[in-house]
Amino acid sequence: MSDARVLALCGGVGGAKLALGLYRLLGSELTLVVNTGDDFAHLGLHVSPDLDTVTYTLAGRVNPATGWGLAEDSGHFMAALTELGGEHWFFLGDRDLALHVERTRRLAAGQTLAEITASVARTFGIRARLLPMSDQLAPTLVETDGGPLAFQHYFVRERCQPAIRALHYGGAQARPHPEFLSALADPNWTAIVLCPSNPWLSLDPMLALPGVRDALRAARVPVVAVSPIVGGRAIKGPTAKIMAELGLEVSARAIAAHYGDFLDCLILDRRDAALAADLPGSLVADTVMHDEGDKIALAKTILAAAHGGR
Amino acid sequence: MSDARVLALCGGVGGAKLALGLYRLLGSELTLVVNTGDDFAHLGLHVSPDLDTVTYTLAGRVNPATGWGLAEDSGHFMAALTELGGEHWFFLGDRDLALHVERTRRLAAGQTLAEITASVARTFGIRARLLPMSDQLAPTLVETDGGPLAFQHYFVRERCQPAIRALHYGGAQARPHPEFLSALADPNWTAIVLCPSNPWLSLDPMLALPGVRDALRAARVPVVAVSPIVGGRAIKGPTAKIMAELGLEVSARAIAAHYGDFLDCLILDRRDAALAADLPGSLVADTVMHDEGDKIALAKTILAAAHGGR
Repeated sequence: MSDARVLALCGGVGGAKLALGLYRLLGSELTLVVNTGDDFAHLGLHVSPDLDTVTYTLAGRVNPATGWGLAEDSGHFMAALTELGGEHWFFLGDRDLALHVERTRRLAAGQTLAEITASVARTFGIRARLLPMSDQLAPTLVETDGGPLAFQHYFVRERCQPAIRALHYGGAQARPHPEFLSALADPNWTAIVLCPSNPWLSLDPMLALPGVRDALRAARVPVVAVSPIVGGRAIKGPTAKIMAELGLEVSARAIAAHYGDFLDCLILDRRDAALAADLPGSLVADTVMHDEGDKIALAKTILAAAHGGR
Repeated sequence: MSDARVLALCGGVGGAKLALGLYRLLGSELTLVVNTGDDFAHLGLHVSPDLDTVTYTLAGRVNPATGWGLAEDSGHFMAALTELGGEHWFFLGDRDLALHVERTRRLAAGQTLAEITASVARTFGIRARLLPMSDQLAPTLVETDGGPLAFQHYFVRERCQPAIRALHYGGAQARPHPEFLSALADPNWTAIVLCPSNPWLSLDPMLALPGVRDALRAARVPVVAVSPIVGGRAIKGPTAKIMAELGLEVSARAIAAHYGDFLDCLILDRRDAALAADLPGSLVADTVMHDEGDKIALAKTILAAAHGGR
């Protein structure tokens, strides 16, 4: 597998675990396209939560306790902002803040989000290619029982408590990054991988971009996903809650159906082995990643699964 | 002097020392109008160095080592920004940064600089009234041997090294805050005080605002200044260097001449007692403030000097 090349689509914390496993195997042969549907303007800053989580994770700098933010960061800025009566529901560490300030400055100076992302990745010594799904704003809007909420207001401020009625993806009115589309058309990947991010919150924003689903259907390489639902529960985050709210069966079967029209292989956890018979092309493996060894093992499983081609 | 009321015009670190002495004596009976000619947009933030120095000083929160910034602040943001290749010549502490972010956010939301300044002062428990000289941008431009420089580029980035040829005050094209003008016309002050800030960098930006010099000339209360030049040298900062570059005698005499058309009393240091005979209305005192006792003593001297009226 030393000549493997992977294009992976990734959200934040959950997806970044597999992204790290793939990166450890593939180094510069990994291209990660990252969800920016969570991006938002906050305190006058352009915050890109998933891009930052992936960047910090691949750089080995992520806060291991949270899976996001920088390790050993401090909260002096937030404490002072709170004292001033500022908005403090979205935590920004002192060191982390530098990236938001610098990104905002460069965007205002005319650089694109993709250029900034690549430059920051270089600064952090990351050899993989990181690409935002779009250079345009494509905010996810969450329709809840309590009314519409901007994504981070739903996800962080309201802690995913309001029941979701529908999701609206800004991507539907945006353009995917041209290099995202050209990567999807590249016949030389070993696989296109959908990381085990939340399908509705983290991957659908990418799939909503015009042309992306078509390109996945037309891809000439195997498209492999890892189910974020294991034994009827989400490994982390609100995936199971959201599926129930949307009237879906909380199982890997519903994940397979969700990605159905372009998916070649769904990796199921061993606890869901009984579902495999009903899911053509599915493959059973250990999908719960506790440590870096687990992440690399799952990445290897994916490459092996893709070996047969589409 | 328990019923004394003072209006003081103040710049940054040097002036804030006397401002603190006046505040200790007068509490809520002190109104401070602060220079904003140093204000600038930096990293997308609205930074008001003199307002912050005065706020932190009166709140007892200023960094005692520098005279600006917050005590016990940390530099994690700056370290991370430096790693990212961002602009790091202007130090912003992690806690201090919250004020710049919050001020910038409130300005963008439509609050005025004066409203924000008053609100922040309340948050810090300051009973004195703090007022920016103007709600409008009024940037000082420094004409140097090496070309024109924005104020902080001259003052901080270039450490006042370039020789000054001329100073251009944005205030000349701005409006003083209406409450600044109405305060200058108020006949009920014990004194109007010009703090020992740098006359050319910190007080002239205020004096350049249309109507301010006229109002000082017309004031019905004594106008008292403290010379920032003692024994031919500046107590701090580049005042002496700038005076020499502008072809002026580096002495309290030149300070008296500079404020001549509206000044009633110039407080000279004991080391300059020999100049007093030539300077009608001048008064000799200890003007070098090392500790809070010195600051309060100088404030008392000023109130005593003003006692006789204009």
